[in-house]
Amino acid sequence: MSEYTLHCFAESGNAYKVALMLELTSQDWQPVFVDFFHGQTRDSQWRETLNEQGEVPVLEHAGQRLTQSALILDYLAERTGQYGPGDEDERREIWRWMLFDNHKFTSYYAMLRFLLCLKQTGETEVTGFLRERAKAAYRVVDAHLANTPFMVGRRLTIADLSLAGYVFMPEDTGIVLSEFSHIEAWKQRLRALPGWKHPYDLMPRTAS
Amino acid sequence: MSEYTLHCFAESGNAYKVALMLELTSQDWQPVFVDFFHGQTRDSQWRETLNEQGEVPVLEHAGQRLTQSALILDYLAERTGQYGPGDEDERREIWRWMLFDNHKFTSYYAMLRFLLCLKQTGETEVTGFLRERAKAAYRVVDAHLANTPFMVGRRLTIADLSLAGYVFMPEDTGIVLSEFSHIEAWKQRLRALPGWKHPYDLMPRTAS
Repeated sequence: MSEYTLHCFAESGNAYKVALMLELTSQDWQPVFVDFFHGQTRDSQWRETLNEQGEVPVLEHAGQRLTQSALILDYLAERTGQYGPGDEDERREIWRWMLFDNHKFTSYYAMLRFLLCLKQTGETEVTGFLRERAKAAYRVVDAHLANTPFMVGRRLTIADLSLAGYVFMPEDTGIVLSEFSHIEAWKQRLRALPGWKHPYDLMPRTAS
Repeated sequence: MSEYTLHCFAESGNAYKVALMLELTSQDWQPVFVDFFHGQTRDSQWRETLNEQGEVPVLEHAGQRLTQSALILDYLAERTGQYGPGDEDERREIWRWMLFDNHKFTSYYAMLRFLLCLKQTGETEVTGFLRERAKAAYRVVDAHLANTPFMVGRRLTIADLSLAGYVFMPEDTGIVLSEFSHIEAWKQRLRALPGWKHPYDLMPRTAS
């Protein structure tokens, strides 16, 4: 039995944020596959026993059950002593970007990808709307990364790992990534980290 | 000059979260009106001098400039000693709900209200989509409030103030509020707090 158990599936960028943190910090962890696409996170058993919010990821550690990727990243940074803030100002900057990520950067992109690429709705008013919102969030992050190699403190922190949730997903959402050159350069820096793995190589995939 | 300066406008529920916290804890604060509907938060001056994320609220205090409502609430809870966590478990529970709020509860509802009621797009595929997402988030919070008077620790915390951002907004989004009876009862408990004020009575409104 590993020290950390992560309830996850490879298509979930929110789970990837945590899986990548566990991997980069060389923790003893194991993934447990969640059958999201057949409704596992939405049934009453999941809500009652694992997460009333009906979401992945859930991390089990030392008798605790943790949810919300940003909060799990904060927990792991504290436990491992890696990729956390160096002082109070950095702590606020990290949270500021993790909140922006949850509200806009990850959330619009993930929903666009889910509808267009996984649920395969085709192009609709909704996918068009989500793409514009995702691009607006991408512009904010791209402008920030024009002046710094990583989001906070010029080194890798959990703010980067939060924003990185979906940026390596291979599906084509119709966003022209070359328009966000600073994000693309930052992705190269992340990919070059020792121990970096793609989400589809780090967690179990849903059988199609 | 007040101790706290809040850049805000009455139609912003994200600003209301902070304004209500300042009011309930009897801080010396003043609002500064932001002309969001004429693009003030999106122009380059705003981004360069106040918030590169292009958002309201911004709180100025003691030479610091704070953004992201959840982070500001956390800051104010610590400074005032009110409505914060009593221990580490409560701290995580509060953040867990503030993250859910940013990702889903506030965000889908606020966008639906903005498009349908303020921008007046009429009913579209997008408003229909947002309404279903908002209702799913409302169901999660309603189920939680079936067993507790407030979100965490059976007393008012900043988790409640975060989730309360848009729930008092008067515009009709087409969501049948009576379907969420536990949320409605919780709103009554909030309204009954000494010093509670409606967002439109607490911050300057945009001239129409």
